[in-house]
Amino acid sequence: MQFHLNGFQAGDPHIDAGQASERVAAATSQETNRVLPDEVDVLIVGCGPAGLTLAAQLSQFADISTAIIETKPGPLILGQADGIACRTMEMFEAFNFSERVLKEACWINEVTFWRPDPRNPSQISRQGRIRDTEEGLSEFPHVVLNQARVHDFYLETMRNAPGKLSPVYDTEITAINRSDSGAVTVDVRNSRSGASASVLAQYVVGCDGARSRVRQMMGRDLVGDSANQAWGVMDLLAVTDFPDIRFKCTIQSADNGNLMIIPREGGYLFRVYVELDKLAPNERIGSRELVKEDIIDAARRIFHPYTLDVKEVPWWSVYEVGQRICNRFDDIKERGEDRVKERVNERVSEPMQDPVDQAGQSQPRIFIAGDACHTHSPKAGQGMNFSMQDTFNLGWKLAHVIRALATPDLLHTYTQERQRAARELIDFDREWAAMFNQSASEENHHEDNFLKQGRYTAGVATCYQPSLITASRDHQMLAPGYPIGMRFHSAPVIRAADARPLHLGHAGKADGRWRLYAFADPAPPQSSSSLVRGLCDYLQHDAASPLKRFTPSDRDIDAVFD
Amino acid sequence: MQFHLNGFQAGDPHIDAGQASERVAAATSQETNRVLPDEVDVLIVGCGPAGLTLAAQLSQFADISTAIIETKPGPLILGQADGIACRTMEMFEAFNFSERVLKEACWINEVTFWRPDPRNPSQISRQGRIRDTEEGLSEFPHVVLNQARVHDFYLETMRNAPGKLSPVYDTEITAINRSDSGAVTVDVRNSRSGASASVLAQYVVGCDGARSRVRQMMGRDLVGDSANQAWGVMDLLAVTDFPDIRFKCTIQSADNGNLMIIPREGGYLFRVYVELDKLAPNERIGSRELVKEDIIDAARRIFHPYTLDVKEVPWWSVYEVGQRICNRFDDIKERGEDRVKERVNERVSEPMQDPVDQAGQSQPRIFIAGDACHTHSPKAGQGMNFSMQDTFNLGWKLAHVIRALATPDLLHTYTQERQRAARELIDFDREWAAMFNQSASEENHHEDNFLKQGRYTAGVATCYQPSLITASRDHQMLAPGYPIGMRFHSAPVIRAADARPLHLGHAGKADGRWRLYAFADPAPPQSSSSLVRGLCDYLQHDAASPLKRFTPSDRDIDAVFD
Repeated sequence: MQFHLNGFQAGDPHIDAGQASERVAAATSQETNRVLPDEVDVLIVGCGPAGLTLAAQLSQFADISTAIIETKPGPLILGQADGIACRTMEMFEAFNFSERVLKEACWINEVTFWRPDPRNPSQISRQGRIRDTEEGLSEFPHVVLNQARVHDFYLETMRNAPGKLSPVYDTEITAINRSDSGAVTVDVRNSRSGASASVLAQYVVGCDGARSRVRQMMGRDLVGDSANQAWGVMDLLAVTDFPDIRFKCTIQSADNGNLMIIPREGGYLFRVYVELDKLAPNERIGSRELVKEDIIDAARRIFHPYTLDVKEVPWWSVYEVGQRICNRFDDIKERGEDRVKERVNERVSEPMQDPVDQAGQSQPRIFIAGDACHTHSPKAGQGMNFSMQDTFNLGWKLAHVIRALATPDLLHTYTQERQRAARELIDFDREWAAMFNQSASEENHHEDNFLKQGRYTAGVATCYQPSLITASRDHQMLAPGYPIGMRFHSAPVIRAADARPLHLGHAGKADGRWRLYAFADPAPPQSSSSLVRGLCDYLQHDAASPLKRFTPSDRDIDAVFD
Repeated sequence: MQFHLNGFQAGDPHIDAGQASERVAAATSQETNRVLPDEVDVLIVGCGPAGLTLAAQLSQFADISTAIIETKPGPLILGQADGIACRTMEMFEAFNFSERVLKEACWINEVTFWRPDPRNPSQISRQGRIRDTEEGLSEFPHVVLNQARVHDFYLETMRNAPGKLSPVYDTEITAINRSDSGAVTVDVRNSRSGASASVLAQYVVGCDGARSRVRQMMGRDLVGDSANQAWGVMDLLAVTDFPDIRFKCTIQSADNGNLMIIPREGGYLFRVYVELDKLAPNERIGSRELVKEDIIDAARRIFHPYTLDVKEVPWWSVYEVGQRICNRFDDIKERGEDRVKERVNERVSEPMQDPVDQAGQSQPRIFIAGDACHTHSPKAGQGMNFSMQDTFNLGWKLAHVIRALATPDLLHTYTQERQRAARELIDFDREWAAMFNQSASEENHHEDNFLKQGRYTAGVATCYQPSLITASRDHQMLAPGYPIGMRFHSAPVIRAADARPLHLGHAGKADGRWRLYAFADPAPPQSSSSLVRGLCDYLQHDAASPLKRFTPSDRDIDAVFD
């Protein structure tokens, strides 16, 4: 896979570069000219990772109508959120494309740590090396792949699914109104033609980024502060004698600041995050007017005595680290909360009805996810991953409520679970950024922190509290290796029916079904003393069996519970 | 993956069945209406596994013009050669689609052996169980996948490659003439419109099956005999209490004959090969007028006491076992050999020029591969696999000669290597079929034979003799684990540059490059005593270095040798 040998070219590496641009043009034209329906069950606003994860999930259900809109004119060609955590790979497996990501991506296997050489502190030397991902944390590695490819896989999944879903591009929202019945009217405008239209949606999900209009129209704010540390980031093609250029590594210099290297897919490019200047309070990075040579120079000083001969900079940016969050991720007004009206694009959006007061009900109809409700620094590689987990959490819940398999109360668990998880992430991110910004002289050994925080950065630390859908810890002793409230941790098994080695967790696909894993007792399953057999008999025959209570009689026996 | 739950439907299981038929129609229409060029470097006749493997190989080279023609009107929808040997999976990895086959295919993990129960010989019981593939034989499993999907992957590979190749359908050959210069004129006819055309090809490869016209026009015959054993084969959706229905297994009954079960992809269908009647000498199976109920009845008798309630038979056939082979796989006339003219489609093809006598040269220009030059019984699952290996062998050689990286002498090794390998395969197949046809009373234990023959059925037993491209055994002791003349057996390694676990063999792609694997000595590579360093210095600087001698100066240093 040498598709980065001659500069950075996005697209499917299985397609010869000579054909890639015409293919992208064909795909883009195929993807545009979609027409927005008048009514949908779910309207998704925004084609980023959060929006596409939700669209891919809902497209699995032919009986749910979904639309996804995007202000941009077509699919993303080049993105910057490229770190894919282990937990995200597990989710990609549930969407059936993990093996393709594994094939294309750069694997992050070990992390090395460079600090001032004790014998000559003006030079750096390698002083630590750890596995990137703790043994047994996940069956998947941590990988790096251009965000646009992740989008491609989602778009293909959506197209191929029963719902046959494609985005409607060039479309921006101008107003959102929730009616007495709960349904939401969304006014949109074609950003090319200027033509207006309205969509009646049962649910609206704003996945429209840190400057989310959906959030603004809901009257919610991102609360938090920007850190006063400027960073530069760039993708480089370079010749260097630095030996760990294909490793993820951190370099702390004595006096010239810190940087982090992330190798990229394709085998040639690598990404460098470089610490730049401290900013004054309330100073924004834009005011510094930094250019890429500033970042390269800073990087060269940190690399000393190794050389960095930059051949090409396909992409670069500067940013400041900030952590901000919304207090709720839906449109339920909390006691004492005041709803703010926003001007969007110089048009005053219609005043939004308060669902609690006006409709006499308290079920959420409008949600926000991803950067729309939480932002953090990019270096922990959590932004895209966490955003996708937001809508992976929301998707099956919306589907259950729309398909009348669950009451709307289920939807409250989205904010309960994800707002708390986002707060924890922001706390983690703040610690992480502070740790990273410390100078080498502070005796700060990154590797200890990396090890400790590995579960977090792998995305497998999330634990939901007891709720409508998460049991209390009372019976935890029955499955001590599977903490209640955490993701199902897969394990390699041999399937008895055909002796096939496979991963237990990979039986769980993103198909909206519940899964029951029964860990067998030693009694042979044919014997009447077998507990597993007893469970099966109960499930099949007992009137109290969830299979009997919740599986529609006209559907397959495993349609709801697998 | 339940795409076989509601009957057998071919196509990409990642595409919802509701969309599959329109997709197939769209793909078919996209694939047709291709125009045959007037001149090509290579003309491939036939779009079976052998033809597509060659086309996929040649399509990797933008500087080689290739055409592939097929008499059928479009891509295969449903094929019958579905067993994929480990060695074939290794080749698919070289073409970059092994992970997709692994995902879709049914894995054959263990084989079980059923024979008359010693306590009650009127019933069968399980009396043996072995791994299908010996530990360490290959990094890939033996799998089963509908042949049409293998074709799909090849067609996609060809389309996406630098050569951007697609078949020309509805096209049959009517004459082949080799000119004095060696180039070959092929007359073709569109089987719908009847329109005729001619193609001038530097090389022609007949991959057109057991009734190959290319072979007939070359005046070669398949020599051998049909065995007098009739077999039935069917794909079944059935309810049964036979516990090993998802295993590959052989059942030898006391008095009712033998059968073999092969589970299929998708989790529901399975294939059954059933021994039918002995045929009289020279009797053909067609004369028996067998229907599918005959096969089902025979299977039911062998299954006793287990029941077989057949719900659907998506495909069935009857056949007799036969092994036949050509004495050469190219158009070089051997001493004393007489060229036969054949009537094809009631037109007499032009007399073919004898290349040795007329052109004063003895380099082959016309080849045959796959079923066109060897046929065998389907049960050992070798037909498709061996055919693909034929053209995987021929492809890079043609490319080398066309690109002037090798003299035409290289092309002689194709027949040398593959005709001998085919003879060995036929010997193996004859033994295998005889073994399988023995009755249980002959104390014939299949598992011993399976174990012994595992390397053969996995496709990794082939060993080429010393030749222009295969060294003698003189220096075998330098790499005792890698027998000279056999395929490079992969091993799991950690890549030093980025600590990535990967398979050594997977660095070898079907890109026409030669690969050098140097197994390092213990000296650090920086030290001047390092043997590996010495090798690298030699390769880079010595005038005798093959890198310096054979790599064009205007190309990348690894363009010829990786």
